[in-house]
Amino acid sequence: MKAGPSQEEIRRQNLSTLLRHVHLGGPASRAVLADRMGLNRSTIMALVTELTTAGLVREELPRETGRAGRPSLVVRPESVNRYVFAFDVGVDYLAAARIGLGGAFLDHRETVAPRIGLHPGETAATLAGFAAEMRDTAPPGAVCVGAGAAVRGMIRHPDGLVRSAFNIGWTQEGFAEDLTRRLGLGLPVLLDNESNLGALAEHRRGAGIGCQDLVYLHGDIGIGGGVISGGRLLRGHSGYGGEVGHMLVNPRGGRPCSCGSRGCLEAEAGQNALLEAARRPVGAATGRAGIRAVVDAADRGDVTARTALHTVGDWLAVGIVNLINLYNPALIIFGGTLPEIYLGTAAHIRSRVNTHALPASREVARFRVCRLGDRTLLTGAAELAFTHLLTDPLAHALPAPGGS
Amino acid sequence: MKAGPSQEEIRRQNLSTLLRHVHLGGPASRAVLADRMGLNRSTIMALVTELTTAGLVREELPRETGRAGRPSLVVRPESVNRYVFAFDVGVDYLAAARIGLGGAFLDHRETVAPRIGLHPGETAATLAGFAAEMRDTAPPGAVCVGAGAAVRGMIRHPDGLVRSAFNIGWTQEGFAEDLTRRLGLGLPVLLDNESNLGALAEHRRGAGIGCQDLVYLHGDIGIGGGVISGGRLLRGHSGYGGEVGHMLVNPRGGRPCSCGSRGCLEAEAGQNALLEAARRPVGAATGRAGIRAVVDAADRGDVTARTALHTVGDWLAVGIVNLINLYNPALIIFGGTLPEIYLGTAAHIRSRVNTHALPASREVARFRVCRLGDRTLLTGAAELAFTHLLTDPLAHALPAPGGS
Repeated sequence: MKAGPSQEEIRRQNLSTLLRHVHLGGPASRAVLADRMGLNRSTIMALVTELTTAGLVREELPRETGRAGRPSLVVRPESVNRYVFAFDVGVDYLAAARIGLGGAFLDHRETVAPRIGLHPGETAATLAGFAAEMRDTAPPGAVCVGAGAAVRGMIRHPDGLVRSAFNIGWTQEGFAEDLTRRLGLGLPVLLDNESNLGALAEHRRGAGIGCQDLVYLHGDIGIGGGVISGGRLLRGHSGYGGEVGHMLVNPRGGRPCSCGSRGCLEAEAGQNALLEAARRPVGAATGRAGIRAVVDAADRGDVTARTALHTVGDWLAVGIVNLINLYNPALIIFGGTLPEIYLGTAAHIRSRVNTHALPASREVARFRVCRLGDRTLLTGAAELAFTHLLTDPLAHALPAPGGS
Repeated sequence: MKAGPSQEEIRRQNLSTLLRHVHLGGPASRAVLADRMGLNRSTIMALVTELTTAGLVREELPRETGRAGRPSLVVRPESVNRYVFAFDVGVDYLAAARIGLGGAFLDHRETVAPRIGLHPGETAATLAGFAAEMRDTAPPGAVCVGAGAAVRGMIRHPDGLVRSAFNIGWTQEGFAEDLTRRLGLGLPVLLDNESNLGALAEHRRGAGIGCQDLVYLHGDIGIGGGVISGGRLLRGHSGYGGEVGHMLVNPRGGRPCSCGSRGCLEAEAGQNALLEAARRPVGAATGRAGIRAVVDAADRGDVTARTALHTVGDWLAVGIVNLINLYNPALIIFGGTLPEIYLGTAAHIRSRVNTHALPASREVARFRVCRLGDRTLLTGAAELAFTHLLTDPLAHALPAPGGS
């Protein structure tokens, strides 16, 4: 237990807090910032001046104002000149984006990747190539201040080692170092589990804004989970907390799982379980398209599809019961392919939850579909990438563009 | 997001940190405190003077010193003159203790309570009676600075409403207010779930010292869980997080549970499940004695007892697999009657965990028996009771005994 902060630490903390306000909350006048932060206007002015000099914010007239009279200046994040690279290593795709301070998507690249045998080196090369393209087309003076990547696997905290990524076959991969080296930005690429980043994204910019206790569930081939508890990502001892997909829901005779166990939530309720139960023909669509086909067939009254959806929904509900009883979240957010499954079997899931979850906990748990859609994971990777800059703005800033 | 702290808040924070150091770490010299807190000696001296004036610490020669020469003074918590009342509402007993600043048990009372129909009002009256007795025998000048109670149920945070306590039949009980009124100390009684307090106790003073991510499991009639994640109690949105006993481990045809569901961990692995599976005769011992009888019989080679222990251990293992995968703890601590069950079937549990838990997470998860034994819950209730004093020592302190 350390002592309270020094004056210098407080100044840094205030700069950090102000930058977070405009990064997450958008442009705001000094008066509004003073009010939100509980500081007087002269302190706010000094902080804004420092951040302006560092090239992180600028003051200008608001772009729109509904009021008569002369509008106040607003403090705006330098969203074009300060950006991060966000990467998403999917099981069957690779995506990258250039995202400005404040969260704006400035540029975007995506490619389909082979599902099995996605080699870490080739993956890093492809993503670094995307980044180089996007950097070339960035305006002069724009500077990259961080990089972050979402990987479907168990990512060790804080060093970012890919400990196990069952669905892409990686084990003990130093992928972050490789990507860092290939990017050549002099900035480390930060890595986290895809669902942790989905939780972070929806917590900061999506369906979970203002909610301090939520679970984000991400489905594609597997099922992942990210937990925000008391406003912070639940990481556990090594960074592997919230491995919801490997919750043992069917301990007696469950389906084999990619992790080596049986009866995991992912094995019982993942995409493969659904498509098999729906007896989709070999060669039929998989991924989001395959799931949508089953949901559509169930909607049209196809009994096999409907039964498959209920079976998978039932296991998903067992998982949700346990999430409610173990984490007491105010929100459960469905992302990736799970919104389709959830919407296709919501009444069934609710009924199972009502039978098994503790009343006091289930009463406060609302279910939501993720608000950021296909951009959820890239948004989370960008938030991760902004971590250092937001924590200590001046240590990671560069001189203002065009400044002396 | 608020701004950094003011000078006054920093001073309060430093007083709080220093008091926590001597409360949890025991007597320490000013030099040691300066080193631990990263402050200079003159600041430490000023803080110690303030806390001494407030009657919370005193400086004196150490009671033992192995070194030659004149020993330094140590700062010691006022463990006799400043105390809290800690209460433990068991399913079949009631306990109370007077516990000094620094954690010493100064006095203790206990009684056997009827298992069903433990009326909240009678419970509060009994506990308040214990407190009155212990206050009467406290030395002159000793002052109560807080009160805390452990209740086996879902306790709403932060107001302490007993939302549901299935095993003692309470629902929506304002037990904290009732006990507060009967105590008549002018101090609110703080309430929390028994396993949350067990986790807090073992984290601060027991098997989990220095461990930031642990799960404490408490068994008696039911099974409860308390989770420390990132150094803090995982509470969830309403305070009901970590309801490990109601994890759905047997979703198809599980045993009925006191919560109204079926197949909960508590229903499959609680005391009743064990005693039934062991076919203990009606009228045989229950509680800790009953469990010990089954473990002893299994040790002697009784096949029914051994099978019963393995069945219960197997369900417990399913629960532990999920705790490992969902919370990634460095420690799982067994308290209450669980140490007996765990020790009686450890190899069986380990084997199940090795088959089903994620390797990266199970490698770091050690299993331990609680170190505070029968005092775990009262210690946790005392830590809860000290919360206000430790957070803001001067606001909750009284003039030094004998001071002007």
